[in-house]
Amino acid sequence: MKSFFVRLFVLAVLSFDSVNLWAQELQWHDPLATDGVLEGRGWEDIGYNRLPDDAQAKVREPVWNLSRDATGLLLRFTTDADQVQVTFVPGKKLSMPHMPTTGVSGLDLYSRAADGEWLWVRGRYDFSEEKIAYSFLTPNSTGEEREYQLYLPLYNSVSDLKIGMASSAKFTFLPKRPENPIVIYGTSIAQGACASRAGMSWPNILGRSLDKPLINLAFSGNGRMEPELIEYIETLKASVYVLDCLPNLGPGGGFTEEIVRERITHAIQALKAAQPDTPILLVEHDGYSDGGIDSARKEIYTNLNLWTKAIFEDLIAEGIEDLYLMTREDIGLGMDDYVDGTHPTDLGMQRYADAYIKHLTKILD
Amino acid sequence: MKSFFVRLFVLAVLSFDSVNLWAQELQWHDPLATDGVLEGRGWEDIGYNRLPDDAQAKVREPVWNLSRDATGLLLRFTTDADQVQVTFVPGKKLSMPHMPTTGVSGLDLYSRAADGEWLWVRGRYDFSEEKIAYSFLTPNSTGEEREYQLYLPLYNSVSDLKIGMASSAKFTFLPKRPENPIVIYGTSIAQGACASRAGMSWPNILGRSLDKPLINLAFSGNGRMEPELIEYIETLKASVYVLDCLPNLGPGGGFTEEIVRERITHAIQALKAAQPDTPILLVEHDGYSDGGIDSARKEIYTNLNLWTKAIFEDLIAEGIEDLYLMTREDIGLGMDDYVDGTHPTDLGMQRYADAYIKHLTKILD
Repeated sequence: MKSFFVRLFVLAVLSFDSVNLWAQELQWHDPLATDGVLEGRGWEDIGYNRLPDDAQAKVREPVWNLSRDATGLLLRFTTDADQVQVTFVPGKKLSMPHMPTTGVSGLDLYSRAADGEWLWVRGRYDFSEEKIAYSFLTPNSTGEEREYQLYLPLYNSVSDLKIGMASSAKFTFLPKRPENPIVIYGTSIAQGACASRAGMSWPNILGRSLDKPLINLAFSGNGRMEPELIEYIETLKASVYVLDCLPNLGPGGGFTEEIVRERITHAIQALKAAQPDTPILLVEHDGYSDGGIDSARKEIYTNLNLWTKAIFEDLIAEGIEDLYLMTREDIGLGMDDYVDGTHPTDLGMQRYADAYIKHLTKILD
Repeated sequence: MKSFFVRLFVLAVLSFDSVNLWAQELQWHDPLATDGVLEGRGWEDIGYNRLPDDAQAKVREPVWNLSRDATGLLLRFTTDADQVQVTFVPGKKLSMPHMPTTGVSGLDLYSRAADGEWLWVRGRYDFSEEKIAYSFLTPNSTGEEREYQLYLPLYNSVSDLKIGMASSAKFTFLPKRPENPIVIYGTSIAQGACASRAGMSWPNILGRSLDKPLINLAFSGNGRMEPELIEYIETLKASVYVLDCLPNLGPGGGFTEEIVRERITHAIQALKAAQPDTPILLVEHDGYSDGGIDSARKEIYTNLNLWTKAIFEDLIAEGIEDLYLMTREDIGLGMDDYVDGTHPTDLGMQRYADAYIKHLTKILD
């Protein structure tokens, strides 16, 4: 945006203090050098990744590759700095045709206000394939320490991440929260496609809104309710398991009604066997925005949801407890909530999050 | 998105009819070869542009350059084809770091359902700097003629646009609607930053929702309520003039309170002198999403809105009629409705549009 760059320039000229800051020596902090501060991982010592090393031999290659994307990872810290700089080395492509660089590869920072509410923090960014740099501006925080949450990229990997500020500033990483996280197994939508910023994926909106930790095991195009993933998930102590894989179980992938029923049933039974006291939220397909104009597309999600509801009712009848269903109607996406007919925009993500907040607030109560 | 491309492939394999179609000869239609079908222009014979040739000598160069972007331009047609292909040659950069290619350079198609409601039509796209191609799929329309609206790109220029379908299909361009359009003078936000699709800029949501034509004279970073622009606008017969320039009149651009007051007052008085019966909607600055964390940014929009409200009340007191004000509170953007603190996402665009729909429905009643 021209106006954006004009403003950047003006800001650089007007903010004499800011210019001054960058002339100072910065103090850099590496989150991986402090144990137990990177939140959103189900396993320790796996860097900015989402599956442990031994998964490489057990899961399909696309799942493994997508587990290198940093979605759902979160850093918490306090500082009194009035500028916070963050740099990291990204992987592969920085953007997609229908999802901007800020969403695919960008960082997102929120600060907790005095009343406990989250405030979004503006970042000036510089994207290159070699290094991504954000400079977050928090001028009003000068002199007081405040709490921050930094979201890592939704669709890119991260290495060599460092957080820098004036060496005179106070800085402390906060430990990851000890309570059991919400564990999500999902598709591209739960991974974050196509939010415009990391903070706007529905899991991240949810975590911020409920103020709870979560683990995001969503794999774009590859959230297929697979037994080998369930084996990893059932080892995680969770406050609730969310199973939101229907959009990746359509007939295009060779998934018949029999296979879909088998996978959903197996996932729920295996999780209940391993963690009997952990509630499970099963989620329907949210639909496609062109269902009204393409009856073949409407049939896909309609069938998947019919089968899912039937399985849900069967399992309840068999006595499985603490199993819940969130329907397409509960999610309630409208025609203009998607960018490409399949992936929600920020508008759709907010609606998704609203539905999850409503359901999980009751389940976790 | 991997899942997206997997689906494309599956769709290509499954849709035998589609493959067949592309083996046929396509019939191509050039909108510029038919008079009076390209809607959204205030002047004839200016191609896919938004200011007439003589403006090049009268407006600042950035305004002229931005007037080559096709935002707000709209093609209406009927066809019974089950696939509609559109190609064009784009200008300059296809995307921005905070706005995806689909929004900057993409097309967007809606079809009118039997009940009169608009249905979004999915397009498979192929972006290159040489040519952009969309293939829109409307399988359920086979055999019946339906009405379509095609939105042109929000932040890119267009040349050599052609609409193609099977030569056996019926096709007719609809003439642009004869009623006086809503004429909008605005900034990057009204130009469409940062909608993810052309149909999701607030002016395009508004036009679709009210079912009315509009002319979009919004220039990113350069909607500065300038007399030379007002001279063009006052020649346009409009149902209402919308003046939404506040976000480009901040102090960073050297705009003092005196200049801001002078420009707003001049714009309203000149439009009222030229077109006394045309209502004017003056719009406040929508705010920045980091106002709560950056008091300097909050001061910018707070001051601009105070001055604007004072001018509005003065002019009403002086007897100017049919002048309306839409406030920041009316627009009602929340903290997560922006991508970069300044530009709304689709979530913010929908809120903007909702506020406009409410105000303009009353004004145009």
